[in-house]
Amino acid sequence: MRKRTSILVTNDDGIHAPGIYALWEAMQEMGDVTVMAPNTEKSAVGHAVTISDPIRIEPITRHGGFEGYAVNGTPADCVKIAVGSFLEVEPDIVVSGINAGANVGSNILYSGTVSAAAEGIMLGIPSIALSINTFKSDYYDLAKSVAQTMMKKVLHNGLPKGTLLNVNVPKCSASECSGYKITRQGGEYFLDKLEKREDPRGRQYFWMGGKIINNDKSDDQDGNALANNWISVTPIQYKLTDNSFLDTLSDWGFE
Amino acid sequence: MRKRTSILVTNDDGIHAPGIYALWEAMQEMGDVTVMAPNTEKSAVGHAVTISDPIRIEPITRHGGFEGYAVNGTPADCVKIAVGSFLEVEPDIVVSGINAGANVGSNILYSGTVSAAAEGIMLGIPSIALSINTFKSDYYDLAKSVAQTMMKKVLHNGLPKGTLLNVNVPKCSASECSGYKITRQGGEYFLDKLEKREDPRGRQYFWMGGKIINNDKSDDQDGNALANNWISVTPIQYKLTDNSFLDTLSDWGFE
Repeated sequence: MRKRTSILVTNDDGIHAPGIYALWEAMQEMGDVTVMAPNTEKSAVGHAVTISDPIRIEPITRHGGFEGYAVNGTPADCVKIAVGSFLEVEPDIVVSGINAGANVGSNILYSGTVSAAAEGIMLGIPSIALSINTFKSDYYDLAKSVAQTMMKKVLHNGLPKGTLLNVNVPKCSASECSGYKITRQGGEYFLDKLEKREDPRGRQYFWMGGKIINNDKSDDQDGNALANNWISVTPIQYKLTDNSFLDTLSDWGFE
Repeated sequence: MRKRTSILVTNDDGIHAPGIYALWEAMQEMGDVTVMAPNTEKSAVGHAVTISDPIRIEPITRHGGFEGYAVNGTPADCVKIAVGSFLEVEPDIVVSGINAGANVGSNILYSGTVSAAAEGIMLGIPSIALSINTFKSDYYDLAKSVAQTMMKKVLHNGLPKGTLLNVNVPKCSASECSGYKITRQGGEYFLDKLEKREDPRGRQYFWMGGKIINNDKSDDQDGNALANNWISVTPIQYKLTDNSFLDTLSDWGFE
């Protein structure tokens, strides 16, 4: 008997988010799904892990047969825990999402969705991060079919060691979508503006706001592709050394 | 009158940590220092930012004239807030540390210390992350002098746009130290093991433990260099696209 594909599903919007439910639905048809996700929203946690607090793992059920485990930790924690300790068999693939809001450009660095996939590849498991360019939950049909397509292609072709796929789905229907586009991480970023406010007791506090800036010109950059209704697929790796600067740095004259 | 150098100091161990005090002492001699750091320990928060909670900023004083601002946020928050809103003049340099414990290999990705410096370069400011390979505070003399040397060299030579220096100081005295070594990010990583425990009420919980694994062979890899008493200096950048995989990915036959 052929072994069924074992799929680990996680996210950073939390186990009660609509996006992870949609992803669970899509993955149900593809193999055996384990859902392990943060118990609350953990957006913008980047690659945080919990080392100074106890971790709780709680079984969760939702309608339609959704079962999963809620963790009082980060997306990266969830993957570490599932793969290193909780699951008896190592998953064939990690799929993280479907994130509410795009993860492109500089924001990849802040993304809990992408960091869950990063943890997956660090543990040697092919991993996909999946986001949709909207905060509304009316657009999951296309993203669900993208999740299935990407998963099949990754399992069929494999990924280089240490590389994940960061997939962003536009806010549109399948018929309005331009198709798939292989992209690079572009330069889109969030320009922060701290808003000063006063609480009911007259004490000052701040709230992080701002706006998205995108000066990219080319459709092979993730943010631009997405804006033009492409499904952007960017291979991401974490070899961070700036090799081009090593020689110059050696000439700085350290004793 | 020549303008004094403006230095932003932050960390991830929190504003009350001994390491940031040592860094403040070292930087005091070099220019005008502003300290803005998390109000509690934020180790392993990676590049997290606070978007869903109000942010408080509180003035803090410690002995010896140490003044700073405590933020109920992450290291990246501190840099965003200081540079984007709080400081009237943009700092000439961001120095993050002195972190208790090395930040080398894969752990760079989890490090709040490094992510504060990453936030600095994303805002266009030359930035240094500084860590020491011990959790004891008896070894700051060497690290303090390294902080001063690195700061002078960075301001004198400049850094490429988008590149920070990740500096790790060995646990030794200046006389035992092998000197400076320009290094690459190596493969050292933390092998996680989740410990299962029971709380006083009989409920199961977990604690993230594990051990460091280092299979690196060469002294130009950060973890190895550090183990051999070198001060490792690694240029780090965040262009994450796996360019070498783009062509293969294009051949996957997306419609």
